[in-house]
Amino acid sequence: MTLDDLRRRLAEFAAARDWQRFHTPKNLVMALSGEVGELTALFQWLTPEESARILDDPASRAAVLDELADVTLYLTRLADVLGVDLLEAAQAKIDRNESRFPADRFD
Amino acid sequence: MTLDDLRRRLAEFAAARDWQRFHTPKNLVMALSGEVGELTALFQWLTPEESARILDDPASRAAVLDELADVTLYLTRLADVLGVDLLEAAQAKIDRNESRFPADRFD
Amino acid sequence: MTLDDLRRRLAEFAAARDWQRFHTPKNLVMALSGEVGELTALFQWLTPEESARILDDPASRAAVLDELADVTLYLTRLADVLGVDLLEAAQAKIDRNESRFPADRFD
Amino acid sequence: MTLDDLRRRLAEFAAARDWQRFHTPKNLVMALSGEVGELTALFQWLTPEESARILDDPASRAAVLDELADVTLYLTRLADVLGVDLLEAAQAKIDRNESRFPADRFD
Repeated sequence: MTLDDLRRRLAEFAAARDWQRFHTPKNLVMALSGEVGELTALFQWLTPEESARILDDPASRAAVLDELADVTLYLTRLADVLGVDLLEAAQAKIDRNESRFPADRFD
Repeated sequence: MTLDDLRRRLAEFAAARDWQRFHTPKNLVMALSGEVGELTALFQWLTPEESARILDDPASRAAVLDELADVTLYLTRLADVLGVDLLEAAQAKIDRNESRFPADRFD
Repeated sequence: MTLDDLRRRLAEFAAARDWQRFHTPKNLVMALSGEVGELTALFQWLTPEESARILDDPASRAAVLDELADVTLYLTRLADVLGVDLLEAAQAKIDRNESRFPADRFD
Repeated sequence: MTLDDLRRRLAEFAAARDWQRFHTPKNLVMALSGEVGELTALFQWLTPEESARILDDPASRAAVLDELADVTLYLTRLADVLGVDLLEAAQAKIDRNESRFPADRFD
């Protein structure tokens, strides 16, 4: 599956349930933010070292995958409703970051 | 560009700047959360209707694209550091959602 | 109870459970952010008008009060661990806002 | 100043600028979330140990105080618009937490 396949599948999912009326950009930004909050809660008491091993525990692994999925779903849906190509926007930003933070300054 | 190309480019970007030591899952979750906060701020005073037209204003458009890009970059980088395939996780979640919310219940 | 009483009670609560070691500013910022995410989720699909009546529903009322309480608890605890007086900081900020946004410009 | 003084001052501030129409609970939750995002960004690359010393640096100190103030302002304003007493809600929650996490289990 590509990100574009996911985008299309989410659009069909919303249409089949008549949920488009709830999917304003404002609402979807809140939904994205709520899911990132749940993801944050999974990491809040971990040391940085523990956070790197979070997937070793099966229950934590399932929870992290679930929240990462939810964040991906709402981000993809939000971009679709706005008519934004996420990969294009991300590529343009990383191009700007290459200029702002030239790698040779960090050698 | 695919999501996997973006993942690879971000890994090289971090490696070239010796930033991997900062990129613990805990830190990246915070960075993701901070960017979602900036995205949220762009929508906070808009009505739902205004939020649907936010890209019509050139300055707002640039700001929204920039924040969506940052969210995408940190989400992709976080998943890579954890070793999670975002599209696979998203697909598994939407499969579960199809069961939890059968479309015919919403006819 | 005053905010300072709450601050003291939370410090005793943490000390009695030996939780101070978890209460770094970084971790408490994440806990605060996670609770704000849960609060956000309660409002995400509501229209602005519905959001103004959210407390009319008993189950929503209990959930909103619970999340507002959690946000208050973590914000108070975070400020205490940092040694910041929240009311003093808030007063200084509102003083600055009075200068930045003079009321007569809005008559 | 007490939290109730702050609440009153914020209500007057909004009224004097005719900003009440923007201050729906939904919008204020987003504003709160946006400010918590900015606070999070200040801590994202710090180790837990560095986060405990963040106020030692004057520029970081000013930024942290400013964000903590903004979070406090929006949380207070949100509670006021909803008609919730934050200290009462917080006290009720800490009472419940005392039962859920008895201190002697942590001796």
